[in-house]
Amino acid sequence: MSRVRVHNFSISLDGFGTGDVQTAEAPFGHAGSRLHEWFFPTRTFQGMAESQGDLGGSTGVDDAFARNWATGIGAEIMGRNKFGPQRGPWENDEWKGWWGDDPPFHTPVYVLTHHPRASIEMQSGTTFHFIDATPAKALEVAREGAGGLDVRIGGGPSTIRQFLHDDLIDYMHVVVVPIVLARGERLWDGLEGLEQRFDVESVSSPSGVTHLTFARR
Amino acid sequence: MSRVRVHNFSISLDGFGTGDVQTAEAPFGHAGSRLHEWFFPTRTFQGMAESQGDLGGSTGVDDAFARNWATGIGAEIMGRNKFGPQRGPWENDEWKGWWGDDPPFHTPVYVLTHHPRASIEMQSGTTFHFIDATPAKALEVAREGAGGLDVRIGGGPSTIRQFLHDDLIDYMHVVVVPIVLARGERLWDGLEGLEQRFDVESVSSPSGVTHLTFARR
Repeated sequence: MSRVRVHNFSISLDGFGTGDVQTAEAPFGHAGSRLHEWFFPTRTFQGMAESQGDLGGSTGVDDAFARNWATGIGAEIMGRNKFGPQRGPWENDEWKGWWGDDPPFHTPVYVLTHHPRASIEMQSGTTFHFIDATPAKALEVAREGAGGLDVRIGGGPSTIRQFLHDDLIDYMHVVVVPIVLARGERLWDGLEGLEQRFDVESVSSPSGVTHLTFARR
Repeated sequence: MSRVRVHNFSISLDGFGTGDVQTAEAPFGHAGSRLHEWFFPTRTFQGMAESQGDLGGSTGVDDAFARNWATGIGAEIMGRNKFGPQRGPWENDEWKGWWGDDPPFHTPVYVLTHHPRASIEMQSGTTFHFIDATPAKALEVAREGAGGLDVRIGGGPSTIRQFLHDDLIDYMHVVVVPIVLARGERLWDGLEGLEQRFDVESVSSPSGVTHLTFARR
């Protein structure tokens, strides 16, 4: 059975998965890159940044977790704000995500939006599809696109929160970064007692972050 | 110079240091004892529960942190809700805290309240004093009572938050417990950028919690 997974999802100590306000220049608002500093030195990220060859990078606990992101994944579902800063009806078709011509996904990516538009085929296997659907329905569509592999829920916070609320997540990897953001979008809101549905483990890293894993019971 | 310290302060993943609603039967509201399960098996706690002799208990990372609670401390400051569930004017003098005749503090304890009352002398060196004061002023009073030793800020969340806000804390030990409470009182509210004033370390424990230490830069 294909599983539904969350990977490398970073939050602040106070539970914010993104700051405010999102713009084209600041995808994470005032959080800037602070939620993801742990990720950049990893071999996984270094390999994404330059597709040719091995560029080095760290291979400790941060990389061990980061690396699982793509393994066995056949599709991603993301919220519209992860795709772009626009709100409301699309003004044109120019925006193709934050990731350039060759996004790191290499699978179908289903973007949740109340304003569907034509699919966009990018390089190396990434295709963006735009769907207006509940979490359960979106998952049905993504599972078809995943060809038997797992589906990743890519964020942002409100998208993951909705899938957690509807009990659709099998595995979740969250990274707690020791900063206080105070503003933005929280991951945990409305999820009282979440831990009862999961086996939770925690491991801290020399980089200062703590990796949490939630495995469905 | 005497320092201002916080120890063994437990919060949920979503940052709540206590649940709601506090009553005489439920000092932590709906959180029950879940925020402190990590603490009970430690040798430190076992030693508090029975003052005579060594009763065993765990001696790993949880105990290592727990044990620092009393060392070098000459006074505690606590919010009124840590002392008792009453609100508004005291109806009588019967309530003497949650801890019985021999509270574990063994120092002067300054209870912040807008309704001062006569001090209460308990067994083994604990005396409760009731003061209506700002954090800075309360600290001045407590430092006198501490006789050159450090002052512990005992909680609850809003008391610690006020001392953090006024930049009066030198060292803070916070324990993140992997549960989602969703309701109660949050520690981090209004403390954006707190990490910039501290060196922060994290270490996870086999018990499932993560210990965070904040040492003032």
